[in-house]
Amino acid sequence: MTIELRSDTFTLPSADMRRAMADAELGDDCYGEDPTVRQLEELAAELVGQPDALFLPSGTMANLCGILAQADRGRAVIAGHRSDVYHFEAGGPAVLGGTSMRAVPNLPDGTLDPAALLGELALDRTDSQYAVPALVCVETSHNMCGGVPLSPGYLQHVRATADEHRVRLHIDGARLFNAAVALGVPASETGAVGDSLQFCLSKGLGAPVGSILAASVDTVDRARRLRKMLGGGMRQAGVLAAAGLLALKNIEERLAADHANAAEFARRLAESAVLEVRHGGPVTNIVLFRVAGIDDHQVFVERCAESGLRLFAWEPEWVRAVFHAGVTSAEAIRAADIARLTAEKLA
Amino acid sequence: MTIELRSDTFTLPSADMRRAMADAELGDDCYGEDPTVRQLEELAAELVGQPDALFLPSGTMANLCGILAQADRGRAVIAGHRSDVYHFEAGGPAVLGGTSMRAVPNLPDGTLDPAALLGELALDRTDSQYAVPALVCVETSHNMCGGVPLSPGYLQHVRATADEHRVRLHIDGARLFNAAVALGVPASETGAVGDSLQFCLSKGLGAPVGSILAASVDTVDRARRLRKMLGGGMRQAGVLAAAGLLALKNIEERLAADHANAAEFARRLAESAVLEVRHGGPVTNIVLFRVAGIDDHQVFVERCAESGLRLFAWEPEWVRAVFHAGVTSAEAIRAADIARLTAEKLA
Amino acid sequence: MTIELRSDTFTLPSADMRRAMADAELGDDCYGEDPTVRQLEELAAELVGQPDALFLPSGTMANLCGILAQADRGRAVIAGHRSDVYHFEAGGPAVLGGTSMRAVPNLPDGTLDPAALLGELALDRTDSQYAVPALVCVETSHNMCGGVPLSPGYLQHVRATADEHRVRLHIDGARLFNAAVALGVPASETGAVGDSLQFCLSKGLGAPVGSILAASVDTVDRARRLRKMLGGGMRQAGVLAAAGLLALKNIEERLAADHANAAEFARRLAESAVLEVRHGGPVTNIVLFRVAGIDDHQVFVERCAESGLRLFAWEPEWVRAVFHAGVTSAEAIRAADIARLTAEKLA
Amino acid sequence: MTIELRSDTFTLPSADMRRAMADAELGDDCYGEDPTVRQLEELAAELVGQPDALFLPSGTMANLCGILAQADRGRAVIAGHRSDVYHFEAGGPAVLGGTSMRAVPNLPDGTLDPAALLGELALDRTDSQYAVPALVCVETSHNMCGGVPLSPGYLQHVRATADEHRVRLHIDGARLFNAAVALGVPASETGAVGDSLQFCLSKGLGAPVGSILAASVDTVDRARRLRKMLGGGMRQAGVLAAAGLLALKNIEERLAADHANAAEFARRLAESAVLEVRHGGPVTNIVLFRVAGIDDHQVFVERCAESGLRLFAWEPEWVRAVFHAGVTSAEAIRAADIARLTAEKLA
Repeated sequence: MTIELRSDTFTLPSADMRRAMADAELGDDCYGEDPTVRQLEELAAELVGQPDALFLPSGTMANLCGILAQADRGRAVIAGHRSDVYHFEAGGPAVLGGTSMRAVPNLPDGTLDPAALLGELALDRTDSQYAVPALVCVETSHNMCGGVPLSPGYLQHVRATADEHRVRLHIDGARLFNAAVALGVPASETGAVGDSLQFCLSKGLGAPVGSILAASVDTVDRARRLRKMLGGGMRQAGVLAAAGLLALKNIEERLAADHANAAEFARRLAESAVLEVRHGGPVTNIVLFRVAGIDDHQVFVERCAESGLRLFAWEPEWVRAVFHAGVTSAEAIRAADIARLTAEKLA
Repeated sequence: MTIELRSDTFTLPSADMRRAMADAELGDDCYGEDPTVRQLEELAAELVGQPDALFLPSGTMANLCGILAQADRGRAVIAGHRSDVYHFEAGGPAVLGGTSMRAVPNLPDGTLDPAALLGELALDRTDSQYAVPALVCVETSHNMCGGVPLSPGYLQHVRATADEHRVRLHIDGARLFNAAVALGVPASETGAVGDSLQFCLSKGLGAPVGSILAASVDTVDRARRLRKMLGGGMRQAGVLAAAGLLALKNIEERLAADHANAAEFARRLAESAVLEVRHGGPVTNIVLFRVAGIDDHQVFVERCAESGLRLFAWEPEWVRAVFHAGVTSAEAIRAADIARLTAEKLA
Repeated sequence: MTIELRSDTFTLPSADMRRAMADAELGDDCYGEDPTVRQLEELAAELVGQPDALFLPSGTMANLCGILAQADRGRAVIAGHRSDVYHFEAGGPAVLGGTSMRAVPNLPDGTLDPAALLGELALDRTDSQYAVPALVCVETSHNMCGGVPLSPGYLQHVRATADEHRVRLHIDGARLFNAAVALGVPASETGAVGDSLQFCLSKGLGAPVGSILAASVDTVDRARRLRKMLGGGMRQAGVLAAAGLLALKNIEERLAADHANAAEFARRLAESAVLEVRHGGPVTNIVLFRVAGIDDHQVFVERCAESGLRLFAWEPEWVRAVFHAGVTSAEAIRAADIARLTAEKLA
Repeated sequence: MTIELRSDTFTLPSADMRRAMADAELGDDCYGEDPTVRQLEELAAELVGQPDALFLPSGTMANLCGILAQADRGRAVIAGHRSDVYHFEAGGPAVLGGTSMRAVPNLPDGTLDPAALLGELALDRTDSQYAVPALVCVETSHNMCGGVPLSPGYLQHVRATADEHRVRLHIDGARLFNAAVALGVPASETGAVGDSLQFCLSKGLGAPVGSILAASVDTVDRARRLRKMLGGGMRQAGVLAAAGLLALKNIEERLAADHANAAEFARRLAESAVLEVRHGGPVTNIVLFRVAGIDDHQVFVERCAESGLRLFAWEPEWVRAVFHAGVTSAEAIRAADIARLTAEKLA
């Protein structure tokens, strides 16, 4: 049996979710008449401390709608150079929405380089050579920075900076609950800091499809309009929302297990002389590691795959392993064994 | 029990579909690993006579990806002024994709005014005052023109015109199968005429969510890339595709029943002195009618709703009634009775 | 000597203008330090009854900045299907600015089909299928409708309609002064009706380069920012503004002569049995006419060119002749003779 | 008399240029009939070693047209984070053209961080999470890096990198001739390395308005179309082109004098204990310097202005002084005296 650590997007819906999808009460959500979707949106808003929420087919669309709802054509949108919205979303907010994306360096802990951020925010707004900033985006937990969560203190600091410079704050919380569980703070505390926030029901929470954008009623209204134009309005979307509702149950328990598996996997790798784990070890469910003396990990990843372990060669000098509901603690240990053995053969 | 004739988008999935969704074999479709999605895409491509196909969350996104995949920034996209892509999709191909939408009048039979179409196609392409045409879009069956299908002869004529002027042809076949069943021609015959074609698995076919874009392998590749940027990439999308696969079974039988119900409903309305049915009667599942002497049909529609019949006040001098799997033949007759009674009271 | 009637854009600067350009007091206008530009902008604003004005390199850019300054991404911009902004500007407001252009039919007198206009304005703004209207554009005098001016009464009517539906009004007055002179009303009266207005210093006014956008201070500020992004910020633009200042002198006298020449030309054509003049004759400086029994006037236009008369085959069943400072009254008469002779040979 | 060192954009046209503008042979350039513009475009193309060229109202528009002509919607455009196209052009290529701007760090010598550049170019093009690169932009001389020219060797290296990764190369040569004069290589050598190149006729060359985009015939054709849509088509543009033609005479002599003045100014500053000159001294006409112990140079700049010397506080820890035809060698010395005196008072 293959162990799937490429991403937590590979989680399959549980039997309960499948049953809930089959039994869902439905309506046409494009007319606002799907009761299951509405129930999910209300619960999601409450969980992340925002007044309203919207269900969308993906995190990419949730980020896109959140950004475009708050940044008109020609406005600058500031994000980390390793953030998902800048790095992995094909330039959507610029290409589709005519915003000017401004990348500032991410520090290793997922925060934004403070001088670079201030540099962008302090540009003279009367000077027509510059796009006027509208929005700052942060990501927690931060995927490319190895799953690190942003601390409550940092989020408050970014919030204050945004306020001072009269821009809004969007939180890409694709893995918000991983961050919340690792920090031991309620998701609503983090969520309420942003003017808008997206989180994924797929990934660690295990639903098959869908993300939530949570924000003020006005921002959600604008986002709903954008969702329709983008083609994200789905008819009887309650079939997906029914799984999403279950994904919001028992979050802490489920994700804590994933984090424990990630930690155990990392601990075992670190025992090997040829393996280096980033940041000393994971904080959430993502482990970044590398094999000593190897520049391109593609071969290592292929060898592991032959032994039944799927990993991701990451940009490309690091390998990423992501833990999720589809991986047991026994499989985490077996995965570490395979990775060590393979690395030691190659090194 | 309310009779829902506002739209065929209100169809609820059958018990078979619900079971199929619960039992679907799944994978991460963003990695191309969902076997049910792949199965649906292959079957759909074959059904409509195109080399390849893509599953998307909505017809709006399928049209948008089809258009943008074939029209670069600054190119003109020609469509009927009553077509869904021009009238009902919030200007997406222009707003999001920087194309120049050029509306030409739709004739009552859903075709494009031939002189106006030629006027657009014949603009001097060396003159930088004009956007260079890339694509013509037609719609069959044509929603705003009362569900009329485009004849095979007309489609061949448009195809020849497009070829002559070196532009592509996109067919918005949201209700392609209604058109095919009414005309008695296979969907593959119509579908193969276009460079690209979209059809909805929701609406008359009864799936809860999703549409198909079918086209050449190259166009589908471009559309897949656009789908990701738009946020239409869905993880375990097989839960939806499983229902879509069932939606492609027994199409003819199901839609023929809807058409018969629409015809019976229209026949009964036409017996009333105060009701006028457009085009003399429906060709597919959409009936447009109006009450003599009434300009704004909102009040009529509200009164019908109070009597358990939901209709749509349409632009606004016509009322639309759409027949689908959620309406029995008995309900079609009862709906006609309610409409007549209400109209006669108001007139 | 060739008589140039293709367009009034062919006017060459007078000796006075050339001298003024050579002697202009200059500065860097991108820093707001060109005194001649500032003087022109102030005079222009006053002439058309608006609080502020901006100098731009073309009417296309003046329209574009006026439209985008008042219509955010995703908003609908309504214009006549024969208007310059819809027909001749390459879709710029959609392609570059992500607005949704909505064409409504122009009536022969240059006004907008009232039912179609109301149809666009009355679309349900809570329905995310529709782009929300932001702006209506009208054109006076109307080029493609044969140089007809919009009456003060019509402009007041459009203004009231725009107010009622909470949208703004942009006047494309590329030939505003031709309209004003023909109607005998001050340009400031027409100009003040719009939220924004553009007029060309080239064309009939005779400056070599440049147009004015006049509007509120806030709209002009937004337009100035857009002008910079589009690349319309010009350094020592005072060399052009100096000619523009002279173009604003003696307007009435100059344009009245052009109109008289156009009228005389048309009167002489109308005497011929094979020539038909549109609307019975011109109101301003544009004459549309056609040769009886000819569908495509390209050959007629070529024959005239061989005889020293340059005309424009217009869309293509009409021929356009435009009168301007570069055509004397004697040449207008000679032009009529050439056109008649050529037509009679061909017919 | 104030000494203007804020920018070389403040140059005023010479008496010769003013005379040439007044005497220029003109036509309507939107019809391609202005002989002076055509003459300028031909000469400019030859000078920079490209097959064709286009005259535009600004460097911003020349860059914008060059970029959009070579990068379709959704494609990535890679540029230095301190380049004019990324930093000073309001995000135009993204906002107006739907490209995805990707900033890579500029090294102090104006080159692009090689690892970051390769990182962008090597992204998996089959992965729809990434915009596919179309174009790399470099700038020479590099304004924000203190006027440093890119060496011929570096340009060849970037060219090879671009070829290897199948992307095009655009050179923003706003001050191309300053770079060429400083390096002692013909502009045509640098210019021919790019697929496209823009240079300004204003700035050091002294024309009042205008820039050139030079490229292949096909790219120039696309750019001409874009120029029209952007509103950069100008009627009797020959009045400006006439000055541009003179700006292309005696380039070396004029710019060498500016460079000598810059060097002398810098040498004198460097003698002061409280002033630090960047890179040890200028290579072209731009001097960056700072006053020891001062973070924000706004006050220093204001004091200098009171003493008749205009400088620019630059981002904000450096002060920029730019030398041009409007500054004599005596003024350069006087400027150094004012700057030293003011700095010593403040320090």
